Amino acid sequence: MLKFYLNASPNPTKVALFLEESGLPYEPVAIDTRKGDQFKAEYLKVNPNGKVPAIDDNGAIVFDSNAILLYLAEKTGKFLPSNRAELLSWLMFVATGLGPFSGQAVHFKHFAPNDQNHDYAHNRYQYETHRHYKVLDGHLANRRYMVGDSYSIVDMALWGWGRMLPFKLGDEANAKYPHVKRLIDEISARPAAARAIAVKDKFTFKAEMDDEARSIMFGHLKTRAA
Amino acid sequence: MLKFYLNASPNPTKVALFLEESGLPYEPVAIDTRKGDQFKAEYLKVNPNGKVPAIDDNGAIVFDSNAILLYLAEKTGKFLPSNRAELLSWLMFVATGLGPFSGQAVHFKHFAPNDQNHDYAHNRYQYETHRHYKVLDGHLANRRYMVGDSYSIVDMALWGWGRMLPFKLGDEANAKYPHVKRLIDEISARPAAARAIAVKDKFTFKAEMDDEARSIMFGHLKTRAA
Repeated sequence: MLKFYLNASPNPTKVALFLEESGLPYEPVAIDTRKGDQFKAEYLKVNPNGKVPAIDDNGAIVFDSNAILLYLAEKTGKFLPSNRAELLSWLMFVATGLGPFSGQAVHFKHFAPNDQNHDYAHNRYQYETHRHYKVLDGHLANRRYMVGDSYSIVDMALWGWGRMLPFKLGDEANAKYPHVKRLIDEISARPAAARAIAVKDKFTFKAEMDDEARSIMFGHLKTRAA
Repeated sequence: MLKFYLNASPNPTKVALFLEESGLPYEPVAIDTRKGDQFKAEYLKVNPNGKVPAIDDNGAIVFDSNAILLYLAEKTGKFLPSNRAELLSWLMFVATGLGPFSGQAVHFKHFAPNDQNHDYAHNRYQYETHRHYKVLDGHLANRRYMVGDSYSIVDMALWGWGRMLPFKLGDEANAKYPHVKRLIDEISARPAAARAIAVKDKFTFKAEMDDEARSIMFGHLKTRAA
């Protein structure tokens, strides 16, 4: 059976959504990244990048949430837009832009140690994340889904970080991007989305982002301390 | 004929490499991002994200360098590994990890205004970029190419930023990652690579990263000044 390696963060949730929507049988495996499970030798054989999510599909290993969405959509023929140019462009917009910049925005808004001033980096990543949402909101102003006429893996990819919008940019951000919010809300109302969000609740992940968790997850802090 | 929108930066060079390797006829179109060409209405119809590269393949528009590599490899059947799980995983490793973190490393090493202290962000992105190269070097220690037994789009994707390694991490960085350097050097020695690097020389791009260029390229500086 397909093994699905996850923690409680946004990227694994995208993959959980596809698995729940498609009905593929799977076994969830917890990787507690705040405790360092991702750097254990056994897991590095699955994903040498030491991140979640990853899947082991009867020996075919795929890592990176966007790679997994595309792999599973191609394997099943489900949620796969036929327009290859638009599919790849917008999937990469989410994968190489929205995702990385959202991650940096969250880091400087919530997790960077506050013993020094981070205004420049904070402003940079807030600005860039807003800019990506402006592009998305313009794109969604006249279309129901990201690509083509039906719900696809690009919508799922957007939903992963998109449902965390207030966490990234503040409570007022949803009102700025009504077309994005409309699509996120539509997806969140699907029964598979509720099941996808609940997968992590089968496990107990470390909740505190304490010094130990920061040191594990943000390796550059070790460098600084050394 | 296929239109190829470029500037002089690493991401368009990956696409130039594929075009030169495959022999696909194309027309290069300069987008001077230090002068703001990327935000002109005409270009935003090609890429609403306001970045290069993009291609217009007789009406099929593709943006993001990694999306373009996959699109063109699928279209031509060239440089496309057959192992889909490995192809998608490692292409996304470069697209969502190496590329974005390299971009941030370059920003804080070279382009962030030095009227304030950027040590934390600088260290964070130097560390993460090094970490990606460690993963790559381990992966390449026992294999000639990134995926499978032959040269592919994943090697091309790596080469785009990989040949800039000293610019990102300092002159001593190449010696730390000998397996990466071996592959980069192999690709750089190909005649198509020399032609790919030379495509930008058909145009005159603005060379200075002056205040006007910074304000155009780093929108968050405008926010700060306002």
